[in-house]
Amino acid sequence: MGEPFAKRLDAITATRGKLCVGVDPHPASVAAWGLPDDIAGLEKFSRGLVAALADDVACFKPQSAFFEAFGPAGLTVLAAVLRDIADAGAISILDVKRGDIGSTMDAYARAYLADGAPLAADAITVSPFQGFGSLSPAIDLAKATGRGVFVLARTSNTEGEAVQLAAAYDGPNQSSIDSPNVGSLIASQAADANKAAGTPLVGLVIGATLNVLDINLQDFDGWVLAPGIGAQGGTMEHLRGLFAGHPDAWPRVLPTVSRSVADAGPDQVSLKKVAHSLLQWPVF
Amino acid sequence: MGEPFAKRLDAITATRGKLCVGVDPHPASVAAWGLPDDIAGLEKFSRGLVAALADDVACFKPQSAFFEAFGPAGLTVLAAVLRDIADAGAISILDVKRGDIGSTMDAYARAYLADGAPLAADAITVSPFQGFGSLSPAIDLAKATGRGVFVLARTSNTEGEAVQLAAAYDGPNQSSIDSPNVGSLIASQAADANKAAGTPLVGLVIGATLNVLDINLQDFDGWVLAPGIGAQGGTMEHLRGLFAGHPDAWPRVLPTVSRSVADAGPDQVSLKKVAHSLLQWPVF
Repeated sequence: MGEPFAKRLDAITATRGKLCVGVDPHPASVAAWGLPDDIAGLEKFSRGLVAALADDVACFKPQSAFFEAFGPAGLTVLAAVLRDIADAGAISILDVKRGDIGSTMDAYARAYLADGAPLAADAITVSPFQGFGSLSPAIDLAKATGRGVFVLARTSNTEGEAVQLAAAYDGPNQSSIDSPNVGSLIASQAADANKAAGTPLVGLVIGATLNVLDINLQDFDGWVLAPGIGAQGGTMEHLRGLFAGHPDAWPRVLPTVSRSVADAGPDQVSLKKVAHSLLQWPVF
Repeated sequence: MGEPFAKRLDAITATRGKLCVGVDPHPASVAAWGLPDDIAGLEKFSRGLVAALADDVACFKPQSAFFEAFGPAGLTVLAAVLRDIADAGAISILDVKRGDIGSTMDAYARAYLADGAPLAADAITVSPFQGFGSLSPAIDLAKATGRGVFVLARTSNTEGEAVQLAAAYDGPNQSSIDSPNVGSLIASQAADANKAAGTPLVGLVIGATLNVLDINLQDFDGWVLAPGIGAQGGTMEHLRGLFAGHPDAWPRVLPTVSRSVADAGPDQVSLKKVAHSLLQWPVF
């Protein structure tokens, strides 16, 4: 994995476009493919979705929770899904939203970002509730192994506002009026981390269905994972509007679609057709 | 699991005391037991620690990251550790710090809080970066199955301050001056959730090594998981001082010790001895 993550993402999106397909084996989605709600159904759905699209799209975002729900056997399926994505030359962004401190964060990094780890992905999502700085074991290992991390910054669910738009704490003498909100602070810390790493391996997660982009992306030079297109209510047009004030960031936004693609399955031709129709969109 | 989580915790801590022992198979701790850094070492360390203490202490807190680092096989060991704890009649608080929204949070809940799930624990830790409200699928399932959740509120690492002490956002017209900090907001939302559930199944995670308890616990009636005693720098005396202003909360604080206990192993007599010396402490 010699090449830095951001360069690999640049290269593959240049040829395949920027669509990221979510691999969300939600029980309802698995049932819609006529599959049982068990480990066999989980495997057929997830690997079938990847098999249909792995030569066409740049990125896949498997959602770990749906695999964890089946315990260790579900994780064995997730490992196979990650291998399938890698074998097809596509990029895996494993949505695990892990976050912790010290040696525990280090263990999460080894689990998902180390060469040879059974569940290694090209990148993972991480959660900064314990502070951006607590994520450094993941950032350091990602740099060493040519991988990436996407830090939650601003999600589209309303309940997230209380935390993500909170006025960041900067010591006992701060004036809250001048504080950036938490999401903006994360973005600026991500920019600093990319500068220190010498490569923009730290990306952000920003929900595609936000009404307005209420965090400051100034100086942020990494990739943006934007989930929520399709069944979750977002459109490509809305996403473009959301980033209208950020022409510098827009070329590195990965629109992420889950159910709207999967719902076209299990037929491979139908799956390819819906992915290709999304890839027709002018920005790609 | 008919009995509510808080009642089960009341009952077991009344007889065994409130010590919670962390099961952290950190590579250095496993090596200190003369075990290899592989799946066999992981299993011998984790199950050996539980076997030595499961009749003596009320709670164990396995740290999922160290098991995830070994992939699906590590999770199989974690499932065995959770079964061992249950078989001994002790309480398991699985430290996974999961957090997400909607059907994804629901899948995490099913993974760790459903009857019969391979990785089901008595309680899990969760992370509120996407807002306390996003955690409701876990709270709802925990209530239905007699389990609990511990929500991160205030951790002891310095980097956590920027987020956890941020002035919570309460809409575009708020005055930041009057806003509670994020940790205080989480505590008050936990109190509300407990009131709605009719049983205090929602606990908080508060780091034992904080200098001051800078969040408001007024009205909070759940349990507090306080990691960081021992090798991480906290003492029982310091923890008691931290809660000096909260006599109502103190009886429901679970001091959590990891490495300082494990370091006494692998000898079972030595492990019991160190746990018993901690249990001698006046509060128990």
